[in-house]
Amino acid sequence: MTDPERPAMIDRPGLAALQSEANIAVGPRRVPGRDIPVPTGLDASHAVLVEAPYSPAWNLAPADDDGWRVVQRAMAERVGPILSRIRDELGITMIRTMLGRVGAYMLSPADLPAAHRDQLVFFLHGGGYVLGAGEAGTTEATLLAAYGRYRVVSIDYGVAPDRPHPAGLNDAVAAWCALTASHDPRTLALGGLSAGGGLALALLLHLRDEGLPMPAAVSLGSPWADMTRTGDSYATNEWLDNVLVSYDGYLSHAGRLYAAGHDLRDPALSPIYGDFAGLPPTILLTGTRDLFLSNTVRTHRKLRDAGVEADLQLFEGLSHAQFALTPGATVTRTACGEISRFFDRHLIAAD
Amino acid sequence: MTDPERPAMIDRPGLAALQSEANIAVGPRRVPGRDIPVPTGLDASHAVLVEAPYSPAWNLAPADDDGWRVVQRAMAERVGPILSRIRDELGITMIRTMLGRVGAYMLSPADLPAAHRDQLVFFLHGGGYVLGAGEAGTTEATLLAAYGRYRVVSIDYGVAPDRPHPAGLNDAVAAWCALTASHDPRTLALGGLSAGGGLALALLLHLRDEGLPMPAAVSLGSPWADMTRTGDSYATNEWLDNVLVSYDGYLSHAGRLYAAGHDLRDPALSPIYGDFAGLPPTILLTGTRDLFLSNTVRTHRKLRDAGVEADLQLFEGLSHAQFALTPGATVTRTACGEISRFFDRHLIAAD
Repeated sequence: MTDPERPAMIDRPGLAALQSEANIAVGPRRVPGRDIPVPTGLDASHAVLVEAPYSPAWNLAPADDDGWRVVQRAMAERVGPILSRIRDELGITMIRTMLGRVGAYMLSPADLPAAHRDQLVFFLHGGGYVLGAGEAGTTEATLLAAYGRYRVVSIDYGVAPDRPHPAGLNDAVAAWCALTASHDPRTLALGGLSAGGGLALALLLHLRDEGLPMPAAVSLGSPWADMTRTGDSYATNEWLDNVLVSYDGYLSHAGRLYAAGHDLRDPALSPIYGDFAGLPPTILLTGTRDLFLSNTVRTHRKLRDAGVEADLQLFEGLSHAQFALTPGATVTRTACGEISRFFDRHLIAAD
Repeated sequence: MTDPERPAMIDRPGLAALQSEANIAVGPRRVPGRDIPVPTGLDASHAVLVEAPYSPAWNLAPADDDGWRVVQRAMAERVGPILSRIRDELGITMIRTMLGRVGAYMLSPADLPAAHRDQLVFFLHGGGYVLGAGEAGTTEATLLAAYGRYRVVSIDYGVAPDRPHPAGLNDAVAAWCALTASHDPRTLALGGLSAGGGLALALLLHLRDEGLPMPAAVSLGSPWADMTRTGDSYATNEWLDNVLVSYDGYLSHAGRLYAAGHDLRDPALSPIYGDFAGLPPTILLTGTRDLFLSNTVRTHRKLRDAGVEADLQLFEGLSHAQFALTPGATVTRTACGEISRFFDRHLIAAD
């Protein structure tokens, strides 16, 4: 309390009275600065995610497009060797392929169950519409292939700064249409994480509106359903989420770069503002400390209110997307197991 | 920032750097004091719950048993006329009855659907194991009867200080056994809110262990599954939840009074420490600002991991149990609608 350069930590004696007085009227909620402990009772692989420091990249804000390209290349160079090792350890093979004009990576587990042989998950990676181009975007598809035991095709959709909105959506539509030209859509699932979850929802709205084939089931991990600063957890989980940390960090810089002046309330960018009627059965996953908790909860609620089967999975203490990106963690196995069982209930085997 | 008697509000410029430095190492998460706005985009009946000031009773701590009895009487006298008016407005009739040796209130909607005619919800009210004795505990059963269109029997189980643990559990078991002596359990659901949600889980563990009939489906609203100070949201949502506000308030005083020296980790008090194998299909509901968010999420996760069908519903920005206690609010209609449809899928009509 004596260091003016640090957020004040309030002593507990007297705090109840101070807080009661500060919250005696209708309006915003005043909360005190404090240290929030790592909850007890988590297994070690789970606790390590909760106790982790802020991501060093959370407040990344390159000055110009070239600065963003430097970040993209640095990430790609860093994760390439890591992903190669993860695939080896998990028995995953990766093949670079094309879906129509769009590049993609096919991830296949060595122990593919017979029931999954003719089924496929069409996956849209995360990265705030800037990161994750090329192989660097295949982490979540790799883990879903390994722990969910499905074949997963990760789409290399266009990202900013070189290919801003609507390039990502156009790529997703083109790749999906190419895939459904040769696959029964009842054998296909759609998955997306974070920005890729928002893109998956935007893709679904487009398919529904155009009368195109829909997937048999959908998985949305911490979907970026609302790119505007709307949703309670952008405030309540600010500074608590150790991955995104704040809407004012990398997240909104990247989002604005991709939106390139388009209205963030356009359902093609923020699908929460669209109509969810007629969407396929959907499983949604998030963590209680996720800056996107409200994105996920609001999407779930809106799907249910539209009469769509929607199943919500929450993970204690987790920040943004941690359940989808951490090899070996029990939460990742649990998340992929839930997704896989959900797909099992809705996909059919090919004739 | 200049008033030393108020939690410091941090100016945003410079905050990112301060926060990054404070969260550079593994361990607890340091969050700054701040004002958290009421999220936009909620309907008026929802927003009024989020923006409400702290409950005046949150830090209630009577000095002795007589002090608690004064509080109980005051609450009963206050809510009696309110409940009578709510029943009239919602077309609910209430009949005082007995299930074996245990008092109960039967709440019946005027427009009972034919499919629900021979079905019944056995309900355990909230109140921290101290409040809610007599008619005062019938709010949530009344609203579930009205908006879910089920008959609901609200059990007047024993509460502290006069009837501490295990009186509540013994009453719940006795009432359930009396009911199942004359009703096919496949036509029965079990519901509970807050302390009543914890009690419902403890009842289920007992029924399972003793080989007694189980309900066909279960609804747990913000269940008090862990009476120890374990669970991330006891810290993350402290001072944010405007109903319970803090574990150190009324909540833990009441809990200790009821536990009366028994180990809070006993699954009969904190069922999260029990084995959930073989429990019936369960719907769970909570709000993102609920001090019991983790109680609910941990219970959901443990049910899923035990292979139990479990469905989680979250409400944006809501504090503890607000979705179950607010007549007329859209969130209450939505919550009761979800519970009712869940019961519809699992209960059978009587022969």
